[in-house]
Amino acid sequence: MTDSLITIDGDRLWRSLMELAEIGAYDDARTGLRGVNRLALTDADAEGRRLVLGWFRQAGMSVRIDPMGNLIARRDGTDPGAAPVMTGSHLDSVATAGAFDGCLGVLGGLEVVRTLTERGISTRRPIEVVVFTEEEGVRFGTDMLGSAVAAGRIAIKDAHDLIDRDGLSVGAELRRTGFAGDGPARFDPPHAYVECHIEQGPVLAEAGLTVGVVTGVQAISWQEITISGRAAHAGTTPTELRADAGLAAAQIIVALRKMVDSGSYGQLRATVGHLAVHPDLTNIVPARAQLTVDLRNPDDEQMARAEADLAGYLAGLEGSQPGLGLSTRRMARTSHVPFDHGIQKAIATAADDHGLAHLSLLSGAGHDAQEMAAICPTAMIFVRGEYDGISHNPREYSTPQACARGIDVLATTLVRLAGE
Amino acid sequence: MTDSLITIDGDRLWRSLMELAEIGAYDDARTGLRGVNRLALTDADAEGRRLVLGWFRQAGMSVRIDPMGNLIARRDGTDPGAAPVMTGSHLDSVATAGAFDGCLGVLGGLEVVRTLTERGISTRRPIEVVVFTEEEGVRFGTDMLGSAVAAGRIAIKDAHDLIDRDGLSVGAELRRTGFAGDGPARFDPPHAYVECHIEQGPVLAEAGLTVGVVTGVQAISWQEITISGRAAHAGTTPTELRADAGLAAAQIIVALRKMVDSGSYGQLRATVGHLAVHPDLTNIVPARAQLTVDLRNPDDEQMARAEADLAGYLAGLEGSQPGLGLSTRRMARTSHVPFDHGIQKAIATAADDHGLAHLSLLSGAGHDAQEMAAICPTAMIFVRGEYDGISHNPREYSTPQACARGIDVLATTLVRLAGE
Repeated sequence: MTDSLITIDGDRLWRSLMELAEIGAYDDARTGLRGVNRLALTDADAEGRRLVLGWFRQAGMSVRIDPMGNLIARRDGTDPGAAPVMTGSHLDSVATAGAFDGCLGVLGGLEVVRTLTERGISTRRPIEVVVFTEEEGVRFGTDMLGSAVAAGRIAIKDAHDLIDRDGLSVGAELRRTGFAGDGPARFDPPHAYVECHIEQGPVLAEAGLTVGVVTGVQAISWQEITISGRAAHAGTTPTELRADAGLAAAQIIVALRKMVDSGSYGQLRATVGHLAVHPDLTNIVPARAQLTVDLRNPDDEQMARAEADLAGYLAGLEGSQPGLGLSTRRMARTSHVPFDHGIQKAIATAADDHGLAHLSLLSGAGHDAQEMAAICPTAMIFVRGEYDGISHNPREYSTPQACARGIDVLATTLVRLAGE
Repeated sequence: MTDSLITIDGDRLWRSLMELAEIGAYDDARTGLRGVNRLALTDADAEGRRLVLGWFRQAGMSVRIDPMGNLIARRDGTDPGAAPVMTGSHLDSVATAGAFDGCLGVLGGLEVVRTLTERGISTRRPIEVVVFTEEEGVRFGTDMLGSAVAAGRIAIKDAHDLIDRDGLSVGAELRRTGFAGDGPARFDPPHAYVECHIEQGPVLAEAGLTVGVVTGVQAISWQEITISGRAAHAGTTPTELRADAGLAAAQIIVALRKMVDSGSYGQLRATVGHLAVHPDLTNIVPARAQLTVDLRNPDDEQMARAEADLAGYLAGLEGSQPGLGLSTRRMARTSHVPFDHGIQKAIATAADDHGLAHLSLLSGAGHDAQEMAAICPTAMIFVRGEYDGISHNPREYSTPQACARGIDVLATTLVRLAGE
């Protein structure tokens, strides 16, 4: 097996990462760093996609664009009928991102192909590198959107109809940016899917390791809560006559943190990332408030209990101020997704053969791999992040060495899965 | 004294109120009612001012526009050298307003002049009706701005330099709307100032009364709190490593309500009307939050203690999450303003003479009268509001009868103060 050990060109990989990071770059006032803002299907995202699409073609790959705008770049194998081994990730980012989230997986896949081609290494199965559309879900409200359509969980029409805060639809933005492709929206099941991604957490750094084998993705629950109260004058309306939507929103946020701190829900994480009040004026009691609740839990049962207890809390809160109304809308819900043991083993063996100590860990974030797991054997490689693994932040950073070692493991795993 | 009893034309007053309310009107989705949105120095506010300015001139009044954009409409008296008796209020509104707040005081003053002129009643002192600029303070952040400049508390240059959220300045918006006047920015002290305003509270309705004599204005404290945390991924960042600015904002809101409910600060009212987080995305821990705190208290000592205890709470909160930073900016601060006993007595006597039972009460809201109180004997008349006196809301409503009775009392008070 050690014959097929592949060592990629870490400098070339790093240069590609840094060149891509210039697209959508901005000067982040808070950190003093250069950040990345490439929300899905914006002009910046389209520019990034065109750059990478050109690189795929320069590497001799054929590229298909599907109706969801997913880019599928293919390096043929020696057996024309064999199902491909697939890798990839996404190029879209949150509004305050770094250079690595998603991009490492895509450019890592590209680097594997560049390395194989310059060394004249052929494989029996094709190797495909995929760029999934709107993985982050921050623009159109549903994360892993492109891979969910490819894996058949979400219908292409429903995906096209999703709109952003300005009312622009996925379908219209795909057409506007030139990425409304054709052919089937669902993938033929590949032989396997292996994705390399930065950890976005502190586990590998704390353990002093560079790479990890991902055993699965924790359960994720997103909901939007809308609260209606009554606008009233701040100076004259007695406290007991108020229906203060902003206060209710604040109480939910504080209650969520208490749930986390109680330890009663295992490794529950809770985040309120979106919060807005209306009319949003100093001397008016908020008539409306809207917030999102992002819950994560590695345990499906604990997650279900946390959701039920939150729903119970909301019902009680509704009665706490006369005139208060609450409604919730489910935005996303995925259960714990366990990854394939065989693929995990292949990754672990490749890491061993490269002389890299590693550990197995669960992913805290959602990834396209969890969608692909529904249609083929799937697992992921995590690469260590610095600064407690901070991500979705311009401080996000993985060293050139860590990135190269992660893609070494990816390359060796892909080549072995693709066969001679 | 009953000789000088003046009864105004309530129908004409009502028609003027309703006509003005069409300017800046909008259909309020929440209440199903017609609301008013005339933020200071917007196009709608300018249109409202031009309408009322025309009415002043039709009533035979001369109109001066001062450098702050305050409109001063004058009906001459028989003694050219006598200081005027002044009344008035404001025409600007909050974004979700009704038809009465401020407008009743301005159009009531106009109605008094119309009535005096059609009855051929002259007074020794001039009667002036003033429209103050930006009373609400919601656009440029400082309430009672026009009257504060007229009374000398705020320098005209500082007022002109205030900017709204889009960076537009008071000075530029005065010029754009055609209301950058000339002459002195500070008023020569009038003989007296009497303002009629809706109560914006439930006291008169609960007592079954139509009018009240206002004894003063409670202390008001506005501050803006900015919280800096750290953007981080919702799924991967351990709770103990987070610096969640949104959570801190929520904790402040909940703590303020606890302070109010404790009863330890007398009749403290606390409102967080403005609340925003950044980057405001579902799966990112907020890196920044901003909120405003509006405190009211009829007692200066209790108010000072509430402010000090809030500051202590904020200092403690800053240490509760590593990496959290808090800063505060004072937006407005006024002490309890007691009104002149002689003017209160004149109002009470006029109400008695009109056969109107009344009570004395403190104002919960700030009013231009509290600024004028610094330069001349001042007091206010309150008119009952329906629906618990709800205000800053399209449901704000006072009956035609209540408005007419309040302006009867104003007319009689003004004429007696102006003398024969």
